[in-house]
Amino acid sequence: MSRPILYAFHVSSCSWRVRIALAHKKIEHDIRVVNIVNRESRSPEYMSKVNPAGQIPALEVNGNVIAESLAILEYLEEVYPQKPLLPKEAIERAKVREICELIATGIQPLQNPKVAARHSTETEKRLEWTEYYINRGFIALEKILNTTSANGKYCYGDSLTTADCVLVPQVFNAIARFKLDMTPYPKIMSIYNSLMKLEEVKLGHPDNKLS
Amino acid sequence: MSRPILYAFHVSSCSWRVRIALAHKKIEHDIRVVNIVNRESRSPEYMSKVNPAGQIPALEVNGNVIAESLAILEYLEEVYPQKPLLPKEAIERAKVREICELIATGIQPLQNPKVAARHSTETEKRLEWTEYYINRGFIALEKILNTTSANGKYCYGDSLTTADCVLVPQVFNAIARFKLDMTPYPKIMSIYNSLMKLEEVKLGHPDNKLS
Repeated sequence: MSRPILYAFHVSSCSWRVRIALAHKKIEHDIRVVNIVNRESRSPEYMSKVNPAGQIPALEVNGNVIAESLAILEYLEEVYPQKPLLPKEAIERAKVREICELIATGIQPLQNPKVAARHSTETEKRLEWTEYYINRGFIALEKILNTTSANGKYCYGDSLTTADCVLVPQVFNAIARFKLDMTPYPKIMSIYNSLMKLEEVKLGHPDNKLS
Repeated sequence: MSRPILYAFHVSSCSWRVRIALAHKKIEHDIRVVNIVNRESRSPEYMSKVNPAGQIPALEVNGNVIAESLAILEYLEEVYPQKPLLPKEAIERAKVREICELIATGIQPLQNPKVAARHSTETEKRLEWTEYYINRGFIALEKILNTTSANGKYCYGDSLTTADCVLVPQVFNAIARFKLDMTPYPKIMSIYNSLMKLEEVKLGHPDNKLS
């Protein structure tokens, strides 16, 4: 198997999801920086050679490209089973995937700054839009995490899972970018704080510029 | 194992995804109708007993509830391996999941009528919003399907996969609800037309009221 190549950028929250998994599983890989701020990910070259959807992350393995971060996480779990990021029982795996999907479909796409910018040119209206969708998702997430991890450190008890890979960048966005009041979400914050202590999480922090 | 209970509604596109899989795998189940039009899915009872996110579908198995349609599809695939909806090889499974996720994160949440209604009270602006996001996703999808299924009937060659479960309701929405011009998407349309001939797909059609 060839060494995987990750197409990523340091401020991309969906890249961070995958970078946590790669670091956790200690998978050696190369990185190709794709600048999403200057729209390099929408360039004809990137879209024709890597990902027709014009997005990162994308993972190239043996000449094939996998796009979409949750699909990449599942692939890594299947091909690199060491330090698993999914529990063993089907029902437990389902609950972890439910958390991933709640964030990946119910929050992330709607709080995306480009989507908010399409909604309105006014800063205040954009922020109101973003806050609405993050809060709507976090209210549900807080309840779900109180059942999947009543006394646990992470999203599903004390083992790191793909749900944690997806949670971290979303909470980071809420706090650092949108200054969201996290008081109503003590469980989410407690898990986030535990996760931010881990080396595999810190590595992909948006402050660490990729080169 | 107890008989699964699916919480669903006939006009819910995400319920349709799961209903295709249940029908394809011939999994006996019960249905509980949750009316999303009159906001039954947002009732305190449903949100406290079934899904804190206030959404359908949800699948109850042995007293546990799994929410989020892709998580349910993965669960069904693991627990009911008959008539598989994912290919055998990891890279092929990844490509199928990539298609699922492209639609489930990149199109469906953004074209949701409630999101469009939050964007604007004007019908024309809502439609413009919806069309923008469906077209953006379909442009990428058309290219991807031309590689994953250059000569195939369905999204990944000639075998039904979870990608088909997710494609059908999205194309149906585009055509029936939003009257989108599908001329630029011959591959998507050819796959959709093949799929709409299947009994397991027709069963969950929004015209077939659940009771």
